[in-house]
Amino acid sequence: MSKSKIIIIHTGGTIASKVDYKTGAVVAKFEPEELYALYPELKEVSDFDIIKVANIMSEDVDFNFVNELALAIKKGIKKETKGIIITHGTDTIHYTSAALHFMLKNLPIPVILVGAQRSSDRPSSDAGMNLICAARFIIKTNWGGVGVCMHENQSDESCVVLPGEKARKMHSSRRDAFMSFDDGLVARVSYLSGEVEMLHKVIINKEKFELTLIDKNIWVGLIKVHPGFDPKILRNYINYSGLVIEGTGLGHVHENCLPEIENLIKKGVKVIMATQTIFGVVNMNVYSRGRKLLELGVKGNYENLPPESVFMKLLIELSKGS
Amino acid sequence: MSKSKIIIIHTGGTIASKVDYKTGAVVAKFEPEELYALYPELKEVSDFDIIKVANIMSEDVDFNFVNELALAIKKGIKKETKGIIITHGTDTIHYTSAALHFMLKNLPIPVILVGAQRSSDRPSSDAGMNLICAARFIIKTNWGGVGVCMHENQSDESCVVLPGEKARKMHSSRRDAFMSFDDGLVARVSYLSGEVEMLHKVIINKEKFELTLIDKNIWVGLIKVHPGFDPKILRNYINYSGLVIEGTGLGHVHENCLPEIENLIKKGVKVIMATQTIFGVVNMNVYSRGRKLLELGVKGNYENLPPESVFMKLLIELSKGS
Repeated sequence: MSKSKIIIIHTGGTIASKVDYKTGAVVAKFEPEELYALYPELKEVSDFDIIKVANIMSEDVDFNFVNELALAIKKGIKKETKGIIITHGTDTIHYTSAALHFMLKNLPIPVILVGAQRSSDRPSSDAGMNLICAARFIIKTNWGGVGVCMHENQSDESCVVLPGEKARKMHSSRRDAFMSFDDGLVARVSYLSGEVEMLHKVIINKEKFELTLIDKNIWVGLIKVHPGFDPKILRNYINYSGLVIEGTGLGHVHENCLPEIENLIKKGVKVIMATQTIFGVVNMNVYSRGRKLLELGVKGNYENLPPESVFMKLLIELSKGS
Repeated sequence: MSKSKIIIIHTGGTIASKVDYKTGAVVAKFEPEELYALYPELKEVSDFDIIKVANIMSEDVDFNFVNELALAIKKGIKKETKGIIITHGTDTIHYTSAALHFMLKNLPIPVILVGAQRSSDRPSSDAGMNLICAARFIIKTNWGGVGVCMHENQSDESCVVLPGEKARKMHSSRRDAFMSFDDGLVARVSYLSGEVEMLHKVIINKEKFELTLIDKNIWVGLIKVHPGFDPKILRNYINYSGLVIEGTGLGHVHENCLPEIENLIKKGVKVIMATQTIFGVVNMNVYSRGRKLLELGVKGNYENLPPESVFMKLLIELSKGS
């Protein structure tokens, strides 16, 4: 039997929410079946199985949820599964997509997260287009990996599939909130013609699929330095396994942070540098401050990932025991 | 005497740095006079006075420095001053520009911060073009305010002047690292033709100029929530005057943060919501979690500023005693 089925894993978020007409607020209370009923065009693209893993707004995403989701994906990887779509709140879609990227090694199928900036029962909703483009991408590709499929721009012409570890929500309300500054789009999907343009070298991974679950005993911090940052704040992470610091520029901190960072590293905290510029590589070789940080044992040099992704990468590495 | 002079205030950073050929690292050790010697084209635009306020890399910017800079600007506002250029490290240029925007009320002249992503003694340096475009903007405008003038894109054709409170460094190395997603560019300056295109309604402020200095007894925190964020971290800010939380999306936090936020507000900490999406407005009315935060007394609703700017705004407000 050829692969022909797409699994939709439902987790909640705006894509699965409705306006509560009593209060006017948007709440997570959509049922998966309703999504299918709302977008009958989906049936033209593929057959689907719809599974509900959670029904939460994305600000409440925690590592239990991410582990459950990873296990549901593992279960969904079967001979007849062409790919998996995860409906997810956009607020933290990039934290989850980065986590899944690092947790699911050698994915044989595409696992595509989609969200919506307007709830599915609103006429202006972007939910349907993101969903349909994700389904089309899955049907037409042999790519294996975690991606995020959202509007390319403010028009309703195309979606882009961003790599899960490089997606980031960059606007609180626009439908094209997810962007990549540098490179690395996986594909562009035309909503109008249905065409899929691959923008990424397709590598079919033949190695054994592996899953790492997040170890809930591991604590990792994510902080940002800034003018007026009190270095004593760093002492709060002394019992953590790891700490990601969003440094300025290429990965810098104020001189007064150096003794505290040195102390954290001595106490066994793995300290990783990321950049609060979000885009661009960390490079601690260029300026003298960066060189000092390297000397102290700060890691993360030459990494080109958003800080949220660096955070998830560290968490998964520590969960593996490495 | 008509206004004809531009003051260049020198503070350090890459624009004022050289490669140390002993170590290969970039260090801050440029003297203001050398800048003038390097860019003789500046003389064609205007007369200049060059003042050195500091010579630090921008990761070491602190509030003493920002106060000194504000005082130097105040001193520089004279009948013959057409505008002020501040050379500054790009890493924290946006923290300083936002601070100055909120500190200097009713500025009668343009105060433009410029930086460079490559040091001035390198052939690929962007320093000269940013400087010259800033000078041209000042000569040709009657705008009063704080702006940041940097490359518009990766070509050497034009610079843009961004409003000081909306600029943000978005790339660790690209010359067009500063961007505005939404709106609000002040002007575009063609490097080739020298033309200045105003993109902002020019409002000549006739009200009295006022300066607020940062009160060094005020502590404000800037933190980011994320999946796996330990709400107990919030307790570290119990003795702070204010705390800016970079929430997800429209300004959300995990449910488990609510009791800690409530406690901070009860203890007198001013808690302001910003969004880690950087671009877009905070709106705590849309979802039920946001409404709960408003009920608890969290402020910052409808603000459309990057988190770093929200942080500086709160600091200056608290410095005023409001």
